[in-house]
Amino acid sequence: MATAPSVSYSMTVRLEVPAGGTAVSALTTAVESSGGSVTGLDVTASGHERLRIDVTVAASSTEHAGEIVGKLRGIEGVTIGKVSDRTFLMHLGGKIEMQSKHPIRNRDDLSMIYTPGVARVCMAIAENPEDARRLTIKRNSVAVVTDGSAVLGLGNIGPKAALPVMEGKAALFKRFAGIDAWPLCLDTQDSDEIVAIVKAIAPGFAGINLEDISAPRCFEIEARLREALDIPVFHDDQHGTAIVVLAALTNALRVVGKQIGDLRVVMSGAGAAGTAILKLLIAAGVKHAVVADIHGVVHAGREDLVDAPAGSALRWIADNTNPEGATGTLKQAVAGADVFIGVSAPNVLDGEDVAAMADGAIVFALANPDPEVEPAVARQTAAVVATGRSDFPNQINNVLVFPGVFRGLLDAQSRTVNTEMMLAAARALAAVVGDGELNANYIIPSVFNDKVAGAVADAVREAAKAQGPAVAAAASVTVGQGL
Amino acid sequence: MATAPSVSYSMTVRLEVPAGGTAVSALTTAVESSGGSVTGLDVTASGHERLRIDVTVAASSTEHAGEIVGKLRGIEGVTIGKVSDRTFLMHLGGKIEMQSKHPIRNRDDLSMIYTPGVARVCMAIAENPEDARRLTIKRNSVAVVTDGSAVLGLGNIGPKAALPVMEGKAALFKRFAGIDAWPLCLDTQDSDEIVAIVKAIAPGFAGINLEDISAPRCFEIEARLREALDIPVFHDDQHGTAIVVLAALTNALRVVGKQIGDLRVVMSGAGAAGTAILKLLIAAGVKHAVVADIHGVVHAGREDLVDAPAGSALRWIADNTNPEGATGTLKQAVAGADVFIGVSAPNVLDGEDVAAMADGAIVFALANPDPEVEPAVARQTAAVVATGRSDFPNQINNVLVFPGVFRGLLDAQSRTVNTEMMLAAARALAAVVGDGELNANYIIPSVFNDKVAGAVADAVREAAKAQGPAVAAAASVTVGQGL
Repeated sequence: MATAPSVSYSMTVRLEVPAGGTAVSALTTAVESSGGSVTGLDVTASGHERLRIDVTVAASSTEHAGEIVGKLRGIEGVTIGKVSDRTFLMHLGGKIEMQSKHPIRNRDDLSMIYTPGVARVCMAIAENPEDARRLTIKRNSVAVVTDGSAVLGLGNIGPKAALPVMEGKAALFKRFAGIDAWPLCLDTQDSDEIVAIVKAIAPGFAGINLEDISAPRCFEIEARLREALDIPVFHDDQHGTAIVVLAALTNALRVVGKQIGDLRVVMSGAGAAGTAILKLLIAAGVKHAVVADIHGVVHAGREDLVDAPAGSALRWIADNTNPEGATGTLKQAVAGADVFIGVSAPNVLDGEDVAAMADGAIVFALANPDPEVEPAVARQTAAVVATGRSDFPNQINNVLVFPGVFRGLLDAQSRTVNTEMMLAAARALAAVVGDGELNANYIIPSVFNDKVAGAVADAVREAAKAQGPAVAAAASVTVGQGL
Repeated sequence: MATAPSVSYSMTVRLEVPAGGTAVSALTTAVESSGGSVTGLDVTASGHERLRIDVTVAASSTEHAGEIVGKLRGIEGVTIGKVSDRTFLMHLGGKIEMQSKHPIRNRDDLSMIYTPGVARVCMAIAENPEDARRLTIKRNSVAVVTDGSAVLGLGNIGPKAALPVMEGKAALFKRFAGIDAWPLCLDTQDSDEIVAIVKAIAPGFAGINLEDISAPRCFEIEARLREALDIPVFHDDQHGTAIVVLAALTNALRVVGKQIGDLRVVMSGAGAAGTAILKLLIAAGVKHAVVADIHGVVHAGREDLVDAPAGSALRWIADNTNPEGATGTLKQAVAGADVFIGVSAPNVLDGEDVAAMADGAIVFALANPDPEVEPAVARQTAAVVATGRSDFPNQINNVLVFPGVFRGLLDAQSRTVNTEMMLAAARALAAVVGDGELNANYIIPSVFNDKVAGAVADAVREAAKAQGPAVAAAASVTVGQGL
């Protein structure tokens, strides 16, 4: 699939051109004839003979950016100076920082923020540990924890290379939900060690966002941490994705007029996201689901299942899907299905496969950047198509979910996060799209829709509180101050 | 020692008084006759009959604050409303937060800060891990790590109760050195686990500040981490204190005109701070030191040393101090000494002990809040007296050191911190006090002296760089961006 020029491959080229003549207009022509796009052109110095110009250009890849610079270099009279990559410039020195909430101007400030005044606050918390939620950053802090084992689509690139993603996540937590998140990129991929570390760092946080940890380790790590900790632990790659998918499916069903309990759902991919989506769809009422992985349709008799342990994800899938015991390939399974959900690999389906689905077919092809089926092709016969990409309608994007989910959990002082809360989040996200707005190209709101995070947060907070004091802390904590 | 009213025990009392009459003036009288101090008086609502007034009062303890409120309540016609503790108010919701450095206004911003653009930055770091210092928060980030085992003078109050101190520390890192520090309060006091955790979280940080970890565990934890990590690990309670003490001693010697190699130094306290001070003083040239702990003077023949392991702090002290093999009590050791340094307990010396020291005696009585000897008494015969308290001259305060030390380490991209760097920091801190300023009541600059952090940072950076590429990274890192 040819990719359009994108700001994420945007560069600023500093160059000099002769002041007279056609060199300036030749710049734009050169960029556009190379398939790039000029998004800014600033004259930064001017003389009788020469102009210095900063041209900002969107390209479609690193190679493409190099080609465009080559074309510019070929223009008569042009001298190329510094080429700055805008994405890299934004990352210089990192994307987040720590700020003090109070100025420290003088000894009085110091004596309240630090010693000796801070000692009384410490003692108050020592006497009543729940006061940490009131008198420290714990109340609004989330640790974004990764081991760098499954970063974006890039694979096992390790903790340092994962850090830009975790910083971005932290920035999004603040932007969309006012949450203070800090990245912890762990230099270990041992599940026992990760569990021990997250348990140990928990006192300073009100929630743990696990991120980009590979399957099947992510299942065990999350389960053990949920068991051990009194703060919610949420693996966003699993549950964030599942919640957006359920919200999008809910609205797609409003478009095609089908009921969730009647659907035949076929999924491609049995990894972290696939398993979590499946579980949430079943909790939401899906009765007929079939999952295919790289070995074809998952069924109880499949060879690789004989040795799969009782608690494994694949065993769970075999036990909870495919009631008719279908075998064969993904393509065979898709025939006649109402819904296809792909969280797997590019181009596993083609137009004929989609055409063979039931009337009013719903296709969520979420592999990124290249979906399971070309969306334009799928749309020829499917009623609703969604992808993970920002350059098609109906983008399935976790940013719609994790800020609001954690905002709700933190506001409820929730000790956990569970299926009821995730279902509530999905319902709330779906409901942001009103009947008057809903159509096949708008089943899910934009990430910049300012109603989203609040709606999701309200739903999660109320769902947590409804589960009583064992789940969400009492509304008020002690406010005693020794006076 | 009677304590003066302090802003760290400051409260704001909302009350109503009759508009006429003497009630308003009675308020101030009541506070001051109780030994408190009115630091603010704001009329927040006014009517013909009644005034609403917020009175801000400094007390000297929690009990004292309660007494003052009782006195106010006793004034004819006064109604007491809400009593707010100013220190607690500053702590509500915590003292620090996370901020994004860039606005996220639209999809273009999102595509550079997060997916898909961030993937290229991740790959650049995966290919050249040193680029994490350039393209992530690592460059300027310090983890403030505690297990809550020895918090201030409060003891083993645990990780949640330690959090206000660590937040304060983070705020000071930013205020004085522009460093992004984040607290990690660990729910374990097992040394092996702490070492494993800090090793694991290191990829996202350029330095580790260990804080308030009890001795002797702190020695082993720091030593093992320094061995394992390629970023500096600095236990501030040890080395921050040692550096300020050496700087103060350097200037005290300028006042009394003695040389460091000639001094007879007696120390009280063999804990984390005492041991670190001793080691740094010896590195700086002290040849005659005697240390006393709760069992008296440390000497090679002492009973509890028979079983002390070779690597233990007490064994190190026995092997490196007390060349004359003195025995007996602290008081006996102090007679004739040039310098007394206390990091131990209140009131272990009296005026007679100080009077028995050598001429030009230097007394650093650093136990907090109550020093080893009453400073006013010590000053009757000692030439120079310093304490840890902010209400006497010559406050020995780590805030003078840790921000600048880490700023220098980070700027040098130092892989470690060692004695040479600490000696350089102490020299630089001492040198901030010019010959024209130096006197017995001003041997150490104020924490708000804006030359301090920069001077310390410059000295540490240059000391690190002077040790070559094995210690401090090369000045420039790769700036390739794939173009």
